[in-house]
Parts: sequence; structure tokens; C-alpha cells
Amino acid sequence: MTDITIIGTGNMARGIGTRAVAAGRTLEILGRDSAAAQALAAELGGAVSFGSTDAAPAGSLVVLALPFDAAKEVVAGYGDALAGKALIDITNPVDFATFDSLVVAPGTSAAEEIAALAAPGAVVVKAFNTAFAGTLVAGTVADVPLDIFIAGDDAEAKAAVVSFVTDAGLHPIDVGPLRRARELEGFQFVIMTLQANPEFDTFNWNTGLKVLV
Amino acid sequence: MTDITIIGTGNMARGIGTRAVAAGRTLEILGRDSAAAQALAAELGGAVSFGSTDAAPAGSLVVLALPFDAAKEVVAGYGDALAGKALIDITNPVDFATFDSLVVAPGTSAAEEIAALAAPGAVVVKAFNTAFAGTLVAGTVADVPLDIFIAGDDAEAKAAVVSFVTDAGLHPIDVGPLRRARELEGFQFVIMTLQANPEFDTFNWNTGLKVLV
Repeated sequence: MTDITIIGTGNMARGIGTRAVAAGRTLEILGRDSAAAQALAAELGGAVSFGSTDAAPAGSLVVLALPFDAAKEVVAGYGDALAGKALIDITNPVDFATFDSLVVAPGTSAAEEIAALAAPGAVVVKAFNTAFAGTLVAGTVADVPLDIFIAGDDAEAKAAVVSFVTDAGLHPIDVGPLRRARELEGFQFVIMTLQANPEFDTFNWNTGLKVLV
Repeated sequence: MTDITIIGTGNMARGIGTRAVAAGRTLEILGRDSAAAQALAAELGGAVSFGSTDAAPAGSLVVLALPFDAAKEVVAGYGDALAGKALIDITNPVDFATFDSLVVAPGTSAAEEIAALAAPGAVVVKAFNTAFAGTLVAGTVADVPLDIFIAGDDAEAKAAVVSFVTDAGLHPIDVGPLRRARELEGFQFVIMTLQANPEFDTFNWNTGLKVLV
């Protein structure tokens, strides 16, 4: 049985895949390019399976480790093959042409847009969008576990994500309903602009957003 | 000469006032109730002056240490008396009736609404909205200096706020134009919901939002 399917073969797939293996989850990597999926699966460890996105995902948790537009395409394309699954949306729908806003309208979020495209019976959970890929590989930043902000409307799906995050050595923070993705995406957009700003010379896509006590 | 005027006599006035004294700034506290202003000034130290909001603020930096509605009233009421000043908006315009949204519309911010009410020649800088009052008194959380996120359209005013924050022992992060207040206010709203959530028993209006490296 596969616990988690990650769709995507890029840096975020590597980061979350590393955490999934650390959490002891059985993992499948699916990519449009199955050779890239095979390479990432091999890198993550021998027990990780792989395939192409021509196949339906086997995991009950499906991580959309894709840019926003690709995530929408994949969810719409899979249709009913995602019924019953919890889809983890990690996207930051930044308008990279201006780097001054999101591409989603104020008052909504990428997570809500993806949820609107998902088949009946599939639920969306926002998570991991404030964590950069490299920090996910390490699981920590400045020697403290990453905070993973989680938003969703389905309690069972959120509990599965909280369990995964906890077992992965990270610190889950359930911020409430899926519409809280608006604020998670908005703030991470700001954090991303700081990485690209030469004024912050220590911020190089290596920071972690943390609620300290 | 007075460097900083704080309008308000509550917990945020105490927190920012403590930092102003630590930064070596000359400070004035103005309150609707001048006795409350006097008491806070005495608590902060002998060199801190005080008065009522019947008087115009003397400082070149004017901290609106007030709830959103009161901040709007004060700015509109002072009118031209604020010309030439940098107004620091610290507000979080949370809809406390629902605790599910802000009272400002999506696509704007309290900071921008306050700026629209300010007299010509007054500029608004968003700062301190993600810092809770108690952490400002200490200046640190978990033994690290607080991050103070700063947004504004006037470079000179922002530089004055950055200087104040730095001298106060805090870590300034200039996130860009005033419209970035949208994201700062949105995320702090989420952080505030966590403080009120019994699930997070260590979060009691004592947390600090930090960009760790």
C-alpha cells in the first residue's frame, strides 16, 4: 500500500519526498517524465516507487509538488481518479512577471481554486507553501524544526497531514479552514520577494518562517 | 526636541515606548486621557513627556498605538497638524465579531485606509503589527531579537523607522511598498487566531514571528 504520492520531480518534490521517507511512509513519485520520477525515487531510497502521470496516484495523500498552473491541469486531468484522496496544495501563485502580487484575485487563493477543480470526494489541504525546498530536505532551519502551516476544511484529511508532518520531524500548525490559504499564500509571497532582494544578503531561499515562543 | 510621539496609553504604547527609551529617543506619550499618558510616561522613565490628544504631536515619528477605528479618528481629527510627519500604523484590522476575516476589504489594508485619511504631506509606514506588546517590552522572543516588518512608500520615513527599530535592538525587515501591509495584516490575523485557540497552549499572545536563517 502506498501512503503518499508526490506528483512532480522538482526541488519541492525532493524536499517533501525526503520528509516522507524520514517519516517512514511508503512513497510514490509520479512525473510527466517518468525517467525524472525514477531518478528522484532512486535518490530518495530503494523503497520509493515511481511512475508517470498517465497512471492514477496510489497514495491516499497526494502532494501536488507543482507550480500553480500545472497543479490545476493535473487535478482537472485526473478527474475522478482523485476521488477519496486528500490533495496537498503547496503552491504559491505569485505573479512572477511583476513580483508585486499574486495571480489569484484578492479574496481567494490557489488552494480554493484548485479545490474548485477537484472531483467530488477529493479534498484539498494547504500545506508546505511557506517552506523552501532546501529547508525541507534538512527538516530544520537554525537548528529548529520547520513550522508547517496547514489549512483545510476536512478534519480527517488535515489529521492525516498533521500526522505526516509530525512523523517527519516538523512542527504542524493547523491554522483553520481552507480559506486561510489566502493569508498563507500572501505572506509567503512577501517572504519570496525578500529572497530575491539583494538587501537581504543572508536570505537565499534558505529561510524558515517560524512562530517562536 | 521630541523624536517620537506615541498616541495611545495601552499595552502596545507601553511596548513600543519601552523600545523607544531603549533606543535613546526622546519620547512623548499622548492620550485622550492625559492622566493615563502621565502614568505611562512615568512608568517608562523620567525623561518621557506626556500630554493629551488635544495637543498636536511634537515628534517627527508618530506612532498610532491605537485600534484601527481610533487610529482613523485620530488621523482625520489632527488633519494638517500631521503634515510632514511619518505616521507608524501598527493596527491589525481584525473582525473580532467573527474572528474569520479582516474588516478591510480584500485588496486593501488598514495602512492604506489610514494613509487615505492623512493630510497631504503626512506619510504612513506600517510597522510593529506582527509584534505582540509583551514581546516588545522584552525586545526578544526565544532569546532572539524580534523581526519588525516595515512597509511604506516614502523612503525617508521608512529609513527613520528602520533606524529606530535597529537602535531599539530589534531586527528591521523592509518588505517594500505600503501595499505589502495587506499581507502583513493578513498573516498577523492568522497568528492572532492561533493565540486564541486552546489547541496551541503555549501561544498566549507571547509569540514572535521570525524569518530564521
